[in-house]
Amino acid sequence: MLIYGLKPVEEALKSARTIYEIFYVEGTHPSLISHAQNKGIKTETMTKESMKKKFGPTHQSIAANVAEYQSSSLSALLEKEGRKLFVILDGIEDPHNLGAIIRNAEAFGATGIILPKRRAAHVTPSVVKVSAGAIERVDFVIQNINQAIRTLKDHNVWVVGMDVNTDESLDDIYADVDLALVFGNESTGMSHQVKKNCDYVVKIPMDGSINSLNVSVSTGVALYDIKKRQRG
Amino acid sequence: MLIYGLKPVEEALKSARTIYEIFYVEGTHPSLISHAQNKGIKTETMTKESMKKKFGPTHQSIAANVAEYQSSSLSALLEKEGRKLFVILDGIEDPHNLGAIIRNAEAFGATGIILPKRRAAHVTPSVVKVSAGAIERVDFVIQNINQAIRTLKDHNVWVVGMDVNTDESLDDIYADVDLALVFGNESTGMSHQVKKNCDYVVKIPMDGSINSLNVSVSTGVALYDIKKRQRG
Repeated sequence: MLIYGLKPVEEALKSARTIYEIFYVEGTHPSLISHAQNKGIKTETMTKESMKKKFGPTHQSIAANVAEYQSSSLSALLEKEGRKLFVILDGIEDPHNLGAIIRNAEAFGATGIILPKRRAAHVTPSVVKVSAGAIERVDFVIQNINQAIRTLKDHNVWVVGMDVNTDESLDDIYADVDLALVFGNESTGMSHQVKKNCDYVVKIPMDGSINSLNVSVSTGVALYDIKKRQRG
Repeated sequence: MLIYGLKPVEEALKSARTIYEIFYVEGTHPSLISHAQNKGIKTETMTKESMKKKFGPTHQSIAANVAEYQSSSLSALLEKEGRKLFVILDGIEDPHNLGAIIRNAEAFGATGIILPKRRAAHVTPSVVKVSAGAIERVDFVIQNINQAIRTLKDHNVWVVGMDVNTDESLDDIYADVDLALVFGNESTGMSHQVKKNCDYVVKIPMDGSINSLNVSVSTGVALYDIKKRQRG
């Protein structure tokens, strides 16, 4: 898989990911390139023009051919130590939102992100770019959402849907348990069945009259709030 | 100024904004169109093709020619009743970030957004679109940032810079005072002088090792946190 941008390539180098080859514009990123060469990674120059043609304007003069980002298994993530905090994305379509949500999950120490196979954004080169390399440190599971919810409930994880159309508030949730937060599609929210399968449906308390947040902001606020309350 | 998208046109109709004319694709949005016509607003049909050509793929079959979005004066905002919570954007360049930040400011009841005149995203049709109409309910001031900070300090508003490179945390800030939160450029952060002029510089507490949030997420988290603590 071809990824591009400085942060994604830097973080791939720091992680255990297999890097087959790095492409760069002559004269750019000298220390990163010599570090990669010292690690025995093949490097090759490309013109700025062909980089732009292949990766768009945000290539930052560097790209890499890396091993595919693999989906984890939910059961493996459930065996991790410590408090669980999953992020379930029920149909997020915008790659920029997915990339920003991956950054949130990394920054606030989520256990993993659960995505459906179909009708949703996946881990593409542009998502890796927007995630600023955070994808290297976040586990994700690709699975049917309702199945995943069943498995989570069987493991005593509380499943909390996030929606604006509810009277319950995020403040009402007891935070010091294993949790999964469910966020729906940018326009249509959670699907009917997924919403029904949640233990609670809560909203982020707001003061305005439009009260519509970008879903990556909602994800960040909810993860921040839960983590803060868990710290006590 | 031409705006497009359902939410922006809906919110413009609900607000006091002057609407010169509404453009729509024949057969779409019948109740909005008849409501506008009852208010005496001129309406005109456009083909889907010309809409797409003019506004891009997210036109949602509706657009409007409206009065320009005017900058407020900082002194007028300082005279508003109640706790002040300003958002200062020191060089946000991405229109999607500005649009999402306007939504945050509306949702969490910020007093207003302060933007510099130069080297920054401004209120363009695509920002109005991304703001999902929230721009109608958020005051903004276009002013030199360092001048604005001086005025705010003269009015006993505490100026808090947000940055990852600091030991102080958002948690350390006493929230029940008038505040202005400063967010820097997506790549380079706050300018040197602006950072120096802040009363404090704090970071959002995070658990990860990359710890890089999209600036619209940082803005949402910080506003949410301050508002929550002010509610008590």
